[in-house]
Amino acid sequence: MKKKTSDLVFAANNGLLDRRYFLKSGLGAALIATSANASEGKHRFPWMRVPGEGMGESGPSKYENHLKRNNVGSQPGTTGSGASRTPIEHLDGVITPSRLHFERHHSGIPDINPKEHRLIIHGLVDRPLSFSMESLARYEHVSKIQFLECSGNSGAMISPNPLQRTASQLHGLISCSEWGGVPLKILLDEAGIKSEGKWIVASGSDAAIMSRSVPIEKIMDDAIIATHQNGEPLRPSNGYPMRLFLPGWEGNACVKWLRTIKVTSTPSMTKDETSKYSDLRDDGVAELFTFPMEVKSIITKPSPGLDLNKAGIYQINGIAWSGMGKIKKVELSADGGKTWAEANLDDHVLSKALTRFRSAWKWNGGPATLMSRAIDEKGNVQPTRENWLKGRAGNTFYHYNAIQIWHIDQEGKASNVYL
Amino acid sequence: MKKKTSDLVFAANNGLLDRRYFLKSGLGAALIATSANASEGKHRFPWMRVPGEGMGESGPSKYENHLKRNNVGSQPGTTGSGASRTPIEHLDGVITPSRLHFERHHSGIPDINPKEHRLIIHGLVDRPLSFSMESLARYEHVSKIQFLECSGNSGAMISPNPLQRTASQLHGLISCSEWGGVPLKILLDEAGIKSEGKWIVASGSDAAIMSRSVPIEKIMDDAIIATHQNGEPLRPSNGYPMRLFLPGWEGNACVKWLRTIKVTSTPSMTKDETSKYSDLRDDGVAELFTFPMEVKSIITKPSPGLDLNKAGIYQINGIAWSGMGKIKKVELSADGGKTWAEANLDDHVLSKALTRFRSAWKWNGGPATLMSRAIDEKGNVQPTRENWLKGRAGNTFYHYNAIQIWHIDQEGKASNVYL
Repeated sequence: MKKKTSDLVFAANNGLLDRRYFLKSGLGAALIATSANASEGKHRFPWMRVPGEGMGESGPSKYENHLKRNNVGSQPGTTGSGASRTPIEHLDGVITPSRLHFERHHSGIPDINPKEHRLIIHGLVDRPLSFSMESLARYEHVSKIQFLECSGNSGAMISPNPLQRTASQLHGLISCSEWGGVPLKILLDEAGIKSEGKWIVASGSDAAIMSRSVPIEKIMDDAIIATHQNGEPLRPSNGYPMRLFLPGWEGNACVKWLRTIKVTSTPSMTKDETSKYSDLRDDGVAELFTFPMEVKSIITKPSPGLDLNKAGIYQINGIAWSGMGKIKKVELSADGGKTWAEANLDDHVLSKALTRFRSAWKWNGGPATLMSRAIDEKGNVQPTRENWLKGRAGNTFYHYNAIQIWHIDQEGKASNVYL
Repeated sequence: MKKKTSDLVFAANNGLLDRRYFLKSGLGAALIATSANASEGKHRFPWMRVPGEGMGESGPSKYENHLKRNNVGSQPGTTGSGASRTPIEHLDGVITPSRLHFERHHSGIPDINPKEHRLIIHGLVDRPLSFSMESLARYEHVSKIQFLECSGNSGAMISPNPLQRTASQLHGLISCSEWGGVPLKILLDEAGIKSEGKWIVASGSDAAIMSRSVPIEKIMDDAIIATHQNGEPLRPSNGYPMRLFLPGWEGNACVKWLRTIKVTSTPSMTKDETSKYSDLRDDGVAELFTFPMEVKSIITKPSPGLDLNKAGIYQINGIAWSGMGKIKKVELSADGGKTWAEANLDDHVLSKALTRFRSAWKWNGGPATLMSRAIDEKGNVQPTRENWLKGRAGNTFYHYNAIQIWHIDQEGKASNVYL
């Protein structure tokens, strides 16, 4: 098949194709002789000659063993502290299979018996309450598809020199699931918040007793006590039997293995929100309580390790998200930000959820500088790294959401670069 | 806590509550003494006293071992033929975890090496084409959240006497995933359909060489060559490395382990669409090619095996879907269809996807007859069993979509009944 250049409609420089045109040909299909097609169609591979395996565990194919999280295992010398990363460059769509959801633990995964577990609501309330799993099941439930991002995600991007790592090693502390559970507002309405109650502090039943303060407005807006993830009960690594889930807000505040919610008049200034998860400014002041994860996107294909082969048409794709609402659009550049083209978004663009963007790109075999820039429905625009760094101390790394730049060299190799 | 009857707003007889009112109290929370709450909150369970497990496989909790598919294993005397069922009564939300997706195989699961696999498009086309996995990846991709239902799902409901089985044993050949892949239209446009090409026949590379005819209109509308499910490559049990996916149409036509697509002028009348997957009428005529799965719903909680405890407020929930589009509404009855109330739907109501419905219900401890009735955006209404049976032969069981009735007795036990 010869590629017809007349089929191609370009939307930006260096090969970015217009999203409104489907490509008709020349993408790599092999033409087969009409006389040959019947015989090729009738060829019997070994797996067609004998009955296959019977039903079993429905696990992944043995040919997909690379589909694993990065860095599974605790940091040496710790009691179960560490992080594992979702292999974002090997996934498609927006749902993260639960076994590939990123993890960040501070003292390992507790082995909780749900029959003994209780959620306690106390503090500045009229009626302190205790909920068993069974009693919680009697309350109104909801489910929503929403992302969860560790506020330390992409922190390696503050390195003065760009680190040569894969997309998931750099940015894999992001996942997206269907989260189900009970709106926390219902439970707090039953407890009755006293007028001085302006914050809560949520504590986990892990050995670290992770504790985070959250303003009451967020709790009453869209916080849930999550008991389900992707249809089934939470995995222990995600807080079984229940976690706090704050749509669009930093993962650490979505306290796993949730045990108590205490209503307070002020933030509790716990160990987990003073020394950590705060943003140090270049004037030496630490900004506390920067909760929402801001608008962001990453091109996952191509990316380091998923290099291009030879010049031709490729599908660029990636993920975009915003803690402020829906993704409105994602723009792509192949020339380092000089010209931009709009990407296609997969149908299900949901608020505070991952959104898959895609674009066709004609790589001419020369160097290219790929960037994606997400814009959300509130008009927030993903910043450049230079702009993100402004006003911040050099060693502060939480809440990084700047544009990622992949350089493609003449060999088709992708690398992490700064402009 | 004393339940205040004044909080309750009823929408239909026998306890169905209005969906617009959240319940504020009396659902099972235990009031704890203000003096006691601090000590209860500070109690340390064994799992809080020692660091937890380090990171691992992120599998389900050992306390959720019941979360398995029904009937995993091939039928005795067959070479891998059989079905396993999604445990719908134990799930929430709409996404089915891939390991719990239902299966229906006719000759086991082939062990396909994706490097050797080819998709061949031939027949009434200008340019017969062959696609490797690598060349297919060069084409435009999309992903959508959509259900897949076996056309034999719920077939046991034709039994003259209601069979006493669980919701998943009766109705578990339904699952919902995010399916990703290449719109088949793009590939057929490249091949060039000759004017006489009105159907395709899709064949799998399992030992059964499952083969189904599909009208070209559906193929050009929304059919995809699916390579991904819930973010990751298809599981072998779901057609790895590729399957045909026909949104809203019967599962069997969504040929797994897809190998050839032949464009034809007429249906091919394969073994898999003549003796099977056809609907026998009571006048002896077999209706062929009834593809869309019609509007349907099932109450999954309560349901047989998930019985009620004592009189009080419960959350009814279940799943609804339509092969014709979006679910518009789901109505519930607790008095055998005399009065109906509208249920709440979870936010993400997507076309040809499972939709979760929910309603609060005050069970007074007496007998109740629960029914759900789904209505889709095209105005299709889920029929009664009596109406569904009209005009059909007594032994035909495909495409059953009638209203399911669960009877709740004074002990709170749920059973399958006919009106």
